[in-house]
Amino acid sequence: MDISKNHPRYASLVSRKKIVDAFESGMLAKAGLIAHGRGETFDYLFCEKTHDFAIDAIRAAASALLLAKNPVISVNGNVTALVCDEVVALSKEVPATIEINLFYWTREREDAIRLAFCGIDPKVKLLGNGTKPKIKGTCSNRAKANSKGIPNADVVLIPLEDGDRANALVNAGKKTITVDLNPFSRTAIASDITIVDNIVRAFPLLVREVARLKETPSLIPDALVKFDNKANLRKAANYLKNRPYSFEEELICIR
Amino acid sequence: MDISKNHPRYASLVSRKKIVDAFESGMLAKAGLIAHGRGETFDYLFCEKTHDFAIDAIRAAASALLLAKNPVISVNGNVTALVCDEVVALSKEVPATIEINLFYWTREREDAIRLAFCGIDPKVKLLGNGTKPKIKGTCSNRAKANSKGIPNADVVLIPLEDGDRANALVNAGKKTITVDLNPFSRTAIASDITIVDNIVRAFPLLVREVARLKETPSLIPDALVKFDNKANLRKAANYLKNRPYSFEEELICIR
Repeated sequence: MDISKNHPRYASLVSRKKIVDAFESGMLAKAGLIAHGRGETFDYLFCEKTHDFAIDAIRAAASALLLAKNPVISVNGNVTALVCDEVVALSKEVPATIEINLFYWTREREDAIRLAFCGIDPKVKLLGNGTKPKIKGTCSNRAKANSKGIPNADVVLIPLEDGDRANALVNAGKKTITVDLNPFSRTAIASDITIVDNIVRAFPLLVREVARLKETPSLIPDALVKFDNKANLRKAANYLKNRPYSFEEELICIR
Repeated sequence: MDISKNHPRYASLVSRKKIVDAFESGMLAKAGLIAHGRGETFDYLFCEKTHDFAIDAIRAAASALLLAKNPVISVNGNVTALVCDEVVALSKEVPATIEINLFYWTREREDAIRLAFCGIDPKVKLLGNGTKPKIKGTCSNRAKANSKGIPNADVVLIPLEDGDRANALVNAGKKTITVDLNPFSRTAIASDITIVDNIVRAFPLLVREVARLKETPSLIPDALVKFDNKANLRKAANYLKNRPYSFEEELICIR
C-alpha cells in the first residue's frame, strides 16, 4: 500500500496503515481496528484539525503531568501503533513511567508492544500488564494493573481508554488525563482532563508543551486553575454542532 | 462474548460481533473492520435510528429495483456479515442477481462469502467476482466485475461501496443505489439513490417495501418522481447539524 503525499487525506491513510501493520504484528485486538474506525469518523467531523479546546486541554495535561509525584502513561496496542515514539519522548521529558495495560491481554500482544518500543529505544523501561486485579471499582480484565505502576500513581495518562476503566481510575482517586476524539464517550466525561483530538497530532504537541512549561514553570498553576473539563467538552460538542454541514463547505474542509 | 439483551447498545454490539466473526471466517479485509468502526460513529450520531430521509430513499430504491430490467445486488464481506439473509430475501422478492464483488479479492474471501450464503439458502445463485476489468472509468481491482452481472445491469444496488467504484458505475450509465451512513461520502454523493441508514435496519425495510410495492404498483412512479437524492442527503446532513449536542440529551439518546 503506497500512499501518495499529495492525497488530500494523506495523514489519515498513514495512520490507517500503521493500525493495519500493528494488527499484523499481533499488537492489536480486532476491536482495536473497529475502534480506530470510530475515531476516523470523529476526526473527519473535526476536519482533521487540532482545535483550541484541544490546545487548552494539552496545556492542562502537561501541567498536571509536571506536578505529579508518580505519573504513569498507560499504553495499549492502538497507542503504541500510532505514537510509540512520542510516548517514549514524553516519558523522558516529564519523566513518567510507561505501563502496558491491555483490556484484551495476551502474552503475544504484550510482546509485540515491547518490540515496537524497543525499536524506538532499546533501553526504554516498560512495566508489563499486571496479572492481578489492582484497581478497585471495576472487575475482570479492566482491573488488572502492575503493582509498581498505576496503583501507586497520582496522575495517569490513559489515551484511547475504555469507559469502565476510566471511571474506576477516577473513583480510585487518580487524576486522570485522556485523549479521546469522542467528546461524549464515558472516558471523555469521566476524566479530569480530556484532550479531544487525534492522538497523532496531540502527542507531539503534549511533548512540546511539557518542555515549554519546564522552561517557564510559573505558567503551570494558571493553566490548571483556568481549565474546566466539562466546559471544554462542551466546546468540542459545540464545534460538532456549528461546523459546516453543507456539501460545498464539506468538500473544502475534508477532501 | 455474551451480549446482554438489556444492554442499551445491544444491536450495535451484535453487529460488531458479526463483523469480528466474519473477519475470523476469512470473509473480511482488515480495512472492513475499520470501515465498520466509521459506520458505528455515524450511526451513534444518528441516534441509531432510521429517519424519514432513509424511509424515503428506501421507497425510491424499492421502486427502482422493481422497474429494473437487470437489477444486480453487489455484495462484499461487510454486507454478507451483516445482512446475508436479507440479501437472499431481496434477491427473491425483486428478483435480482447477486454478485460477489470485492475490492480486496482473494479466493479465500470469496469462498467464505459463498459459505455464509449457502448457510442461508443452499440453492442461492451467486455470481463470482470477475477477474477481468469490466467497468470503464476506473482501474485496478475496482474495475473487475462478472460479465454476466454488473456490466449488463441497468440498476445496481451497491451497499457499503468504495467511492471510486460508485463514480465509475454512475459514469457507466447504471442507476446506482447505495446504503451509506456517511451522507458526505463520495459514494453517497455520486449515487442516484442513497439510503443513509444502518444496513442492518435498512435492508429488512427494503425487502418489506419491495413486497408492498408489488402489491400496489401504482405507488411506484410517484415514489421515484418525488425523490431527490441531493435534497435527501441535505436532510441527513441537517439531522447531524440539529441533533442534540448537549451532554444531558446525548445520554438519553445514546445510552
